[in-house]
Amino acid sequence: MCRWLAYIGEPLRPSTIVLDATHSIVAQSLDSPLGAETVNGDGFGFGWYASGAAATAEPALFHSIEPAWNDQNLRELTRAIESPLFFTHVRAAAGPPIQQTNCHPFRYENWMFMHNGAISGWRDLKRDLTLAIDPGLYPNVLGTTDSEVLFHLALTLGLQDDPIAAVGRAIRMVETVGHEHDVRFPWQGTVAVSDGSTLWAFRYSSQGRTRSLFHSTDIPTLREMYPDQARLAAFGDHARVVVSEPLNDLPGVFVEVPESTAVVLDADGYRHESFLGA
Amino acid sequence: MCRWLAYIGEPLRPSTIVLDATHSIVAQSLDSPLGAETVNGDGFGFGWYASGAAATAEPALFHSIEPAWNDQNLRELTRAIESPLFFTHVRAAAGPPIQQTNCHPFRYENWMFMHNGAISGWRDLKRDLTLAIDPGLYPNVLGTTDSEVLFHLALTLGLQDDPIAAVGRAIRMVETVGHEHDVRFPWQGTVAVSDGSTLWAFRYSSQGRTRSLFHSTDIPTLREMYPDQARLAAFGDHARVVVSEPLNDLPGVFVEVPESTAVVLDADGYRHESFLGA
Amino acid sequence: MCRWLAYIGEPLRPSTIVLDATHSIVAQSLDSPLGAETVNGDGFGFGWYASGAAATAEPALFHSIEPAWNDQNLRELTRAIESPLFFTHVRAAAGPPIQQTNCHPFRYENWMFMHNGAISGWRDLKRDLTLAIDPGLYPNVLGTTDSEVLFHLALTLGLQDDPIAAVGRAIRMVETVGHEHDVRFPWQGTVAVSDGSTLWAFRYSSQGRTRSLFHSTDIPTLREMYPDQARLAAFGDHARVVVSEPLNDLPGVFVEVPESTAVVLDADGYRHESFLGA
Amino acid sequence: MCRWLAYIGEPLRPSTIVLDATHSIVAQSLDSPLGAETVNGDGFGFGWYASGAAATAEPALFHSIEPAWNDQNLRELTRAIESPLFFTHVRAAAGPPIQQTNCHPFRYENWMFMHNGAISGWRDLKRDLTLAIDPGLYPNVLGTTDSEVLFHLALTLGLQDDPIAAVGRAIRMVETVGHEHDVRFPWQGTVAVSDGSTLWAFRYSSQGRTRSLFHSTDIPTLREMYPDQARLAAFGDHARVVVSEPLNDLPGVFVEVPESTAVVLDADGYRHESFLGA
Repeated sequence: MCRWLAYIGEPLRPSTIVLDATHSIVAQSLDSPLGAETVNGDGFGFGWYASGAAATAEPALFHSIEPAWNDQNLRELTRAIESPLFFTHVRAAAGPPIQQTNCHPFRYENWMFMHNGAISGWRDLKRDLTLAIDPGLYPNVLGTTDSEVLFHLALTLGLQDDPIAAVGRAIRMVETVGHEHDVRFPWQGTVAVSDGSTLWAFRYSSQGRTRSLFHSTDIPTLREMYPDQARLAAFGDHARVVVSEPLNDLPGVFVEVPESTAVVLDADGYRHESFLGA
Repeated sequence: MCRWLAYIGEPLRPSTIVLDATHSIVAQSLDSPLGAETVNGDGFGFGWYASGAAATAEPALFHSIEPAWNDQNLRELTRAIESPLFFTHVRAAAGPPIQQTNCHPFRYENWMFMHNGAISGWRDLKRDLTLAIDPGLYPNVLGTTDSEVLFHLALTLGLQDDPIAAVGRAIRMVETVGHEHDVRFPWQGTVAVSDGSTLWAFRYSSQGRTRSLFHSTDIPTLREMYPDQARLAAFGDHARVVVSEPLNDLPGVFVEVPESTAVVLDADGYRHESFLGA
Repeated sequence: MCRWLAYIGEPLRPSTIVLDATHSIVAQSLDSPLGAETVNGDGFGFGWYASGAAATAEPALFHSIEPAWNDQNLRELTRAIESPLFFTHVRAAAGPPIQQTNCHPFRYENWMFMHNGAISGWRDLKRDLTLAIDPGLYPNVLGTTDSEVLFHLALTLGLQDDPIAAVGRAIRMVETVGHEHDVRFPWQGTVAVSDGSTLWAFRYSSQGRTRSLFHSTDIPTLREMYPDQARLAAFGDHARVVVSEPLNDLPGVFVEVPESTAVVLDADGYRHESFLGA
Repeated sequence: MCRWLAYIGEPLRPSTIVLDATHSIVAQSLDSPLGAETVNGDGFGFGWYASGAAATAEPALFHSIEPAWNDQNLRELTRAIESPLFFTHVRAAAGPPIQQTNCHPFRYENWMFMHNGAISGWRDLKRDLTLAIDPGLYPNVLGTTDSEVLFHLALTLGLQDDPIAAVGRAIRMVETVGHEHDVRFPWQGTVAVSDGSTLWAFRYSSQGRTRSLFHSTDIPTLREMYPDQARLAAFGDHARVVVSEPLNDLPGVFVEVPESTAVVLDADGYRHESFLGA
């Protein structure tokens, strides 16, 4: 339903990949070759952990209801900061209104979350799932998307202690409630979560046919593969992205994340594990 | 927290009172002498029952997050239609975000609703009150305001059968839940409701110090009082408004609605009754 | 660069063709099969001459910077009015900013104008063409598009007296100024103009390869061609549209307007003549 | 017509004065005690020279058509960056439409400009003044305000070589053209300009009754005056602001800039000189 990008690594001017890549996330907002929808023009969001003197534990968020492709503020902002960890999300709304509170990423304290996909039968499941949110967290739900409810279910179920287990529990709860309402495949989607140090990404759907997800190959390997690619000089050795679809067409740069997989990216690099598998 | 205007009577070009009165509702958006807030610039809404060939049972809504005072679309629209019953609302947000789904009036089938005031302690009461909405109506709550929840509580409690009783029950429920959360004066506000034929307005607060509310004197009387007022020619004999504050400074044109009162305006004219009084 | 629709005929609820057709203009905003751009999501406009008691000589305008496909206000408005003559335009911006003043249609007194196409080399030609506008009209230019300048050139050159001649003169001026700046093919586009009674449409480009333009077949003929098409009951015998591309896939309903052609639609029906031809 | 704030000094989180001061510029957007208008709700702008690794010669701009007081993005952004030189402007529109291209500050290469005030008779003077802009600069005029034209006149007349002389010449040109059109007092306003290193501010009006302007006292002096003010710890020794009106009520913190004065703030501190005086 949407397209997203998450970066972790050396502090980077976000425009480098948000604007300047062949299939940058802004280009994908207008034309997304692998997307369930070609156009992702129903608003966007950009969230970043500041670096340098402006750093705080809490990420900053920029949300807009305009299409990303012609948004001047996004261009200005992503060229004027650096960040070691940022999320960008372009939205194709599947129902809930176009408003800033429905733009990803969402935030809770130092945590940031975004999602591409949907809870099937959301209109019927919304009440039960919303009630399952910890009453102390309930007032923090500001919008009306299924994605934000999933985030708060994960927070309710232990996201801050064990992100992979908690996102798994939240999705299982969606599936349980969905099955009670005769929804056959309740969950669909890819998710990115961060606490400011580690980036987790998830690919899973009840049907086993999940929206696309890719991670980038490590930069030292790419330098060997493409010694003439001047563009690689923009990236540090630890730079990594996880994206809904490749940002360029160079073979080997982007590797598909398998179905039912949880990805972990941190100072130790990339690893993944089976997630909600059979 | 806001200012509103409701009109019932002969079909009228809404601009006549939305734009052209001395203290029109648009003028009040920038400067509201009697308002709890002087500025009501956090979006606005206009809802109308169409007349003539375009008439339908359901009212049409125009919602905007821009301040009303410089909104060009509102000017254009209210000059190009006629309506026998319309609502206008300018918002001063007391918390919930500035987004179209938080703009009044709200609609359910042929019913239209708007509110000036607040539920005190909304952040703490929201969950319990939202749960009290009929689960079949719950998916129709599109925004995050206390006002929209009150509307759906009233629908849950019989608005379509007995509006005065149902609004009373909904407010009593707010008071009960509020007192359980140690909120001393949970409800504050004036409300307008219509089914397309009759206009009901309510003034009540738990503390007995409710936001201002006025109704206009009947037009034949005003013609006698002000025989030289050319402006009165714009109105039919059955034209009436209920407003948060007077639209002009002429003595006798606007009469304050007493505390704890329900107003009824229909083809038979104006009447009122005690509402939630001691 | 854009897609547009113009209707003339018996008063019609605009939603009938703006929203409800197979390839309605709103559907074209997201996916335009024949468009120079597939996506026309950079705002939209709707202008209409009111009918019935609300009628005035001047058309009313509704402009929005949001994509049309998810705009709730456009849905509400086009379902709640009737109009005998209206324009709708969805924009794919080729440079000038996304703002309401750059949304078509434009208005001058009782005249309404919209355009799909572009002046090539606009950045270089803008100053000379803007200076050619009558100084008395110059302050009415509110936005920064080439289209609005063309409209004011046509007004300067006699639009109100002889629309076909004046639009021709304005385009010739664009070509002259363009050639002075070494622009080979300065003008591209289709234009719609109305004074509230007659609808003129133009298809012409300096290169002779103009954006697509179609007009509908007359309704009595369509009723004979498609006796089982229930949808035709929505239209009066004099209903006609001119559109950038067909609103449905039924053979014979939409007829292409030839290159270098001016179309006239009024109470006498459809006719066309050669326009700026060799 | 507006209110503005310019900061120069040690890199500072802009929220410190944009959001957190008693009469912060955001607070002034809703309630401006010294303003020609109390409410400055017609959009806003924030422009900053980035510091640290993200620094570039060109400032970054954030423009919004929403009122500043409830804008969440402005809050997020000004808390997540640091800057040694930034401008903030809240707008009360005196005519030209509410659109991002009409929001201050404006930019040309490394130069940034903002204005509070107006050119009287703008509708009549606009054409002549716009024509006086260097044709090579003309395409860079993106909006429709008098302020942006003044900026480009100053650029035309040598801003980059001698800012004080060039702003003076531009204002004199406005006065000359105004007098030709029988406008008695053509220019009103305060202006801020920067090249990224130096901040110039101007206070002048044809009538000699200019909108208010203040500069802050140097921080070491303030520390002596107010040894118990913990808030002063947020500022470096070279921190200075120029503002339309004081950001707090402490005596001696803000000093009025005299009529007909040009202010210069740079690494050498504050100085001023007579500007366009008799």
